[in-house]
Amino acid sequence: MQDSELSVAEAGESGALRRVLARLSPARAARLGPGDDCAVLAFDGDAVVTTDTMIEGPDFRLAWHSGFDLGWKLAATNLSDVAAMGAAPTALTVSLACHERTPVALLEEIAAGLDAACRELAPGCGVVGGDLGRAPVLVVSATALGELGGRAPVLRSGARPGDVVAYAGYLGLAGLGLSLLFRESADPDGAAHAGGLARLRERHPVELAAQLAPKPPIAAGVLASAAGATAMMDVSDSLSLDAARLARASGAILDLASGRLERGFSVQRGVRVPLPAMLTGGEDHGLLATFPRDAALPEGFVVIGEVRAATAEAPELRLDGAPCRPGGWDPYTVRPPGS
Amino acid sequence: MQDSELSVAEAGESGALRRVLARLSPARAARLGPGDDCAVLAFDGDAVVTTDTMIEGPDFRLAWHSGFDLGWKLAATNLSDVAAMGAAPTALTVSLACHERTPVALLEEIAAGLDAACRELAPGCGVVGGDLGRAPVLVVSATALGELGGRAPVLRSGARPGDVVAYAGYLGLAGLGLSLLFRESADPDGAAHAGGLARLRERHPVELAAQLAPKPPIAAGVLASAAGATAMMDVSDSLSLDAARLARASGAILDLASGRLERGFSVQRGVRVPLPAMLTGGEDHGLLATFPRDAALPEGFVVIGEVRAATAEAPELRLDGAPCRPGGWDPYTVRPPGS
Repeated sequence: MQDSELSVAEAGESGALRRVLARLSPARAARLGPGDDCAVLAFDGDAVVTTDTMIEGPDFRLAWHSGFDLGWKLAATNLSDVAAMGAAPTALTVSLACHERTPVALLEEIAAGLDAACRELAPGCGVVGGDLGRAPVLVVSATALGELGGRAPVLRSGARPGDVVAYAGYLGLAGLGLSLLFRESADPDGAAHAGGLARLRERHPVELAAQLAPKPPIAAGVLASAAGATAMMDVSDSLSLDAARLARASGAILDLASGRLERGFSVQRGVRVPLPAMLTGGEDHGLLATFPRDAALPEGFVVIGEVRAATAEAPELRLDGAPCRPGGWDPYTVRPPGS
Repeated sequence: MQDSELSVAEAGESGALRRVLARLSPARAARLGPGDDCAVLAFDGDAVVTTDTMIEGPDFRLAWHSGFDLGWKLAATNLSDVAAMGAAPTALTVSLACHERTPVALLEEIAAGLDAACRELAPGCGVVGGDLGRAPVLVVSATALGELGGRAPVLRSGARPGDVVAYAGYLGLAGLGLSLLFRESADPDGAAHAGGLARLRERHPVELAAQLAPKPPIAAGVLASAAGATAMMDVSDSLSLDAARLARASGAILDLASGRLERGFSVQRGVRVPLPAMLTGGEDHGLLATFPRDAALPEGFVVIGEVRAATAEAPELRLDGAPCRPGGWDPYTVRPPGS
């Protein structure tokens, strides 16, 4: 049997782990990496921690996601939550559960994707520990840690009337990628297949990369904090859903300007993105932040609106001054088309 | 519809989360708890981090485990890995994924069990953040953080010839509980049912509690470190498997004495535990540690053997001087009886 075909059942837990660990680079903050009951991390001041899980079926499909892309996306989504606090990611722990017939090679690819995403998006950060288990579908879960370097965390609740609203990262591209995949690489009932995938990747490389292996602007989180961001969050579900959350948390009105959104984001990497896709597409993991009007915005942030007082009115999201009904992703109530 | 019957699909992600979060007490170290992109934690020196996942099917069965027990066990297994480094647990993050028809009440029970285990086993520690997703089976995953309080971490690799081997906690009880459940509360093909469960709980409360909601000696980890433990680990797979790992990591021979094991553990909480059950039963999550011969062992630790040099011989586990073939739990190669 070829080594590339060996299943986790055949390799056993420790055999599979050995091959997975070989794909990982050490984290700078790790005094002790994987292999003991815990990893040991050096911390400089307060730490931030977040966790995010992706499950085969609702969150990803192996017909579309390579192991590498999946590992990359798992890292990216967790790192962006750390960035959204104004912190620098230092370490990830990862839990993988899979069917016993899963090739160890797939787990190795996931590890390689995790490692590459850390190296590119958050140099110095790395996987310091994990867990391997058995499940009927592939479940990949990560917890990310970061350090604030003495700065206060940037919360969702700090937006103040008069602040500008700004966004860094892609906006709507990942959602367009998902729509393309469902339209051209799935059965009418929504079941993913790899049939049209190669052609789709050729015709729409930007949207597919944004969906399958997003590159959120991780370093922009620390820069935003240093520039005086009053509130910040990672846009994972959609701009409209997440901006409405930031508005409620801050007790303010966030008024987005369609003209600014269109000037800033209607063409991204050569792809035309319509306004509704910017507002309802999820999974870009860009940073939504508010800044004092006189702040010098860090590179990458584009002003998309302003914060207004919610005095006699309820805190909410508006678009060009009118109430904007949020739309986007809820794992239990929103379904991909056809499912 | 009764509130207790509401499913996560009906409650939606934020509705379900609100009810789950209401069951949690704040962690002492949390400067910011759940609700933002990350939690913020105060750390006093180096941190330890570990992760452990439990999946419906291979790791637990809802016919046997109440939500409360499941949450308790998830906390206990993660806290014991922190204790095994000689650290004090400070915070947990938890990821729950379930079918959309799962009652929110089950998730609330899991949260209540997590919270109760933290309060009883590691006061001050608590859940600081999490994630809720959709999966075909229930997947519960936790990451635990702890602080070393200025002490060096106790690794698996520090056992030295001349040290004594000691163990704190129950030994074999959880494994006996699992055997009883498979014998009396499962179909011949291994499928769990709740049929004989009430009677089993009445006749074997100790073994069942040890399996379903274990109480590992979390505080003993810090005490062992302070008493000079040279090596330590949490016994999750079995004493023989984990002691063999500690022997290999330390490059030494661990020689367990059956007489000492029997004197210390043949009757636990009134239950007779045979030697093979002590050696191969998993999931007690007690602490296996080595100490210098002249160390004053902390309360709860019982000497069960000694460390010898592996000079001309391979590092390995022995029982009464003879090689001891380890047996226990590997999620991919070991199956419960009948499965």
